[in-house]
Amino acid sequence: MQKFARSRFVDSRFERLNMCSRGVAMLRKSPVLMTAIVRNYTKLLAEEINPNMKKLEYAVRGPIVQRALEIEKVLRRRQKGEKKAFDSVIKCNIGDCHSAGQSPISFLRDVVAVASNNKLMDSPLIPYDAKERAKRFLASTGGSVGAYSQSTGVEIVREDVAAYIKERDGIEAISDDIFLSSGASEAVKFILELVSTTKEGNQRAGVMVPIPQYPLYSATLSEFNNYQIGYYLEEDKGWGLNVQEMERVLSEAKKQCIPRAIVIINPGNPTGQVLNRSDIEAVIHFAHRHNLLLIADEVYQHNIYAANRKFHSFKRVLHDIGEPISSELQLASMMSASKGFMGECGFRGGYCELVNFDPQVKAELYKCLSSRLCPSTLGQLILDVVVNPPREGEPSFQSFNAEKSTILASLRKKAKLVETLFNELPGFECQPVMGAMYAFPRLDLPEKALEAAKEKKMPLDTFYVTELLEKTGVCVVPGTGFGQKPGTYHFR
Amino acid sequence: MQKFARSRFVDSRFERLNMCSRGVAMLRKSPVLMTAIVRNYTKLLAEEINPNMKKLEYAVRGPIVQRALEIEKVLRRRQKGEKKAFDSVIKCNIGDCHSAGQSPISFLRDVVAVASNNKLMDSPLIPYDAKERAKRFLASTGGSVGAYSQSTGVEIVREDVAAYIKERDGIEAISDDIFLSSGASEAVKFILELVSTTKEGNQRAGVMVPIPQYPLYSATLSEFNNYQIGYYLEEDKGWGLNVQEMERVLSEAKKQCIPRAIVIINPGNPTGQVLNRSDIEAVIHFAHRHNLLLIADEVYQHNIYAANRKFHSFKRVLHDIGEPISSELQLASMMSASKGFMGECGFRGGYCELVNFDPQVKAELYKCLSSRLCPSTLGQLILDVVVNPPREGEPSFQSFNAEKSTILASLRKKAKLVETLFNELPGFECQPVMGAMYAFPRLDLPEKALEAAKEKKMPLDTFYVTELLEKTGVCVVPGTGFGQKPGTYHFR
Repeated sequence: MQKFARSRFVDSRFERLNMCSRGVAMLRKSPVLMTAIVRNYTKLLAEEINPNMKKLEYAVRGPIVQRALEIEKVLRRRQKGEKKAFDSVIKCNIGDCHSAGQSPISFLRDVVAVASNNKLMDSPLIPYDAKERAKRFLASTGGSVGAYSQSTGVEIVREDVAAYIKERDGIEAISDDIFLSSGASEAVKFILELVSTTKEGNQRAGVMVPIPQYPLYSATLSEFNNYQIGYYLEEDKGWGLNVQEMERVLSEAKKQCIPRAIVIINPGNPTGQVLNRSDIEAVIHFAHRHNLLLIADEVYQHNIYAANRKFHSFKRVLHDIGEPISSELQLASMMSASKGFMGECGFRGGYCELVNFDPQVKAELYKCLSSRLCPSTLGQLILDVVVNPPREGEPSFQSFNAEKSTILASLRKKAKLVETLFNELPGFECQPVMGAMYAFPRLDLPEKALEAAKEKKMPLDTFYVTELLEKTGVCVVPGTGFGQKPGTYHFR
Repeated sequence: MQKFARSRFVDSRFERLNMCSRGVAMLRKSPVLMTAIVRNYTKLLAEEINPNMKKLEYAVRGPIVQRALEIEKVLRRRQKGEKKAFDSVIKCNIGDCHSAGQSPISFLRDVVAVASNNKLMDSPLIPYDAKERAKRFLASTGGSVGAYSQSTGVEIVREDVAAYIKERDGIEAISDDIFLSSGASEAVKFILELVSTTKEGNQRAGVMVPIPQYPLYSATLSEFNNYQIGYYLEEDKGWGLNVQEMERVLSEAKKQCIPRAIVIINPGNPTGQVLNRSDIEAVIHFAHRHNLLLIADEVYQHNIYAANRKFHSFKRVLHDIGEPISSELQLASMMSASKGFMGECGFRGGYCELVNFDPQVKAELYKCLSSRLCPSTLGQLILDVVVNPPREGEPSFQSFNAEKSTILASLRKKAKLVETLFNELPGFECQPVMGAMYAFPRLDLPEKALEAAKEKKMPLDTFYVTELLEKTGVCVVPGTGFGQKPGTYHFR
């Protein structure tokens, strides 16, 4: 090679022809292949990549957010040309408590620090019970948070999750039905991948999702080529469910796909509603009647603000409905360390409980989990403390609860504030924010705004949030990213 | 609902019929749908799930490992009936340094602890430079490791990765070409998903992988329905590459698929070879000549033991080959915090550098990264310190290097020991372990062993590793999980 270094081009051609004399001799006999070796290298182009990936859209981190990041860069570098009336961007595009100034719960971080650094085991800075948690975790993970865990997650964490569910619902939970995931998102992806038929046309798997929905669902349905069956939530009824609407869309969708699952987000994202018990019962009966796997996104189960609502888990309501439904309906329920009072998004801790799954299907799913090796061990540890918080009598019991209450009270206050504010502002209408972390106000803007949006060739909501970002530095996500009834405009 | 509580079954049937009178009226007109509402609930069965997930196999965590976990449980509970001649299982199935007793590098853990727990900022236990690292990281991530990062990863980490690559290769690297991932595995999955055509038959994307290979590749190819084009490594030449063999299999595979990518693992897993420069050049020319995207799994780049070999990055060799190849060939190179001297598998830190990718393809890929939100922030932080270790003059410079050298020396010693030992033992033959963390010895067992395996209806290697596990508690993975030339038997 070296002797041809003067001309790399000649060199490479030489190399091509010389490298594999047998291969070339064979190729010479075939003019088609011969053309192949002398033509230029062709890159993989966007037209040729996985078409499902091309379809995928994820509004929470979409173009508006990209623009917000650009503005941030400009502000940081104080570039000329682009002057703004604000000096930082307020990112309301995503439920990210810590970046919005919420402090982490001290005990969670005490456990993480001592588990990851052995020399803190003797430090008076770390309370005794945090050290005990860390020791227990390390004893079950090869002595280091740097070791891989089992693919489904550390055994004691799954046992603690089962105990948490049992305490929450008053009914048995089994650690083997629980797998840990990188946030709840990864669990959702695995379940939506599992139900995919990988076929085309009306042989695709259909999955019902609420409209508006959290865009993880639409994105992942695209990724695995599932057919999205959107069912509208009833805005005027506080974003409640409407089973008639569900029946209607399902019946129509049957020509397009093989319906396999239904997604319910409770408390709602982006809509902030908390389902009442009868709505949950109705959905369970609906899913059972249509042979659907029920995917219950319950990551906001700690975020309930409305005085007249409480969180009912799908698992508990399913149990109460009784046989045969309670032992038949397949349910996958997700929970996360990213939301609630902890807001530890960056740790990527989450779990999924599988109820009534066929054992072989569960085995196939768990087999597939193994190729991602394991979720982050510290994410598993954070989740462990969330589901197994300090108990009465333990040194950190009081401080843990005090910090938790303060955060939840603050979130409750903000929820009320946002709701009230939007309903007082002309041009906005906002349903009660009963839970979760979002409001999804409806825009009722004057004709002039509609015309201005039309002129910029944008839907009204996109136009509004773009103007909001450019003029005030507040970044929110337009309703089009979540879906909304035609002719209505919102943002989250 | 409550009034029907005495008979839940009647209740559920009543509910079904009563819930949605309009829906039922409509359904009554349709006998087919009517049947649907009275028949029993049908669960999703294993036959119906995503067929790609069914195909997926991942030997490193396969049946042998499941059996090892069972034995561990038995040993822990000292159950009767199953007596073993050992009191613990030695898990050699996976490259998991910490669970095998390797200590973490102190500085890495100092940075993690202080970044995750603010009160350590004043502690004398944590060195000054670790605090500075943590502050710098926190300043770029919303002040908390509990916040989400950008989907592609924290900007300063990607900049540090670019600087690391520049230092390693002596050529420019751009942070925007780098995305962070949950270990290298997630990056590999994204790239193999990207090249998938999602089509069937000979329209599937073909990906060349070495045989033996790391089973992540075969598993992920199944997951995205890509066609695996295996090319044999030359065992007798220290598991070297053979371009003639590559040409042969590629030419044959063209009837079965659309070849799109080639995977090279260097240093090799499970084979432990380190490619010499001319082999790398040959592969680059091969990939270029056949329009293949080159996936370079370079996670063991710090694990080089053979005195006569050094690590050559594909990016550097590509650069040296010169135009037009150097600015045409698409290369994706992966690196991880799980291997090397750090072995921090549990943190799930990794990166991928994209070279010569079409900008639109890169944009599509980065869009898709957003739906997983972000990799674990502490995984990103660990990776950051790995690529940007303490520099001369910093307080932790010496201790960091001393610990790193000790670990690498120990790994080098073990590599030599394993190689020598197997070559001295009758019935084994082991190629030089030049790098990575594995030996892949060949079994040359007497006829009697073959007969015993046949009797148990197992391939010889599976039989051997099963016996090894049951009799000695040592868990290794049979060669069948990685692939091997027919008639040869190995284990890792």
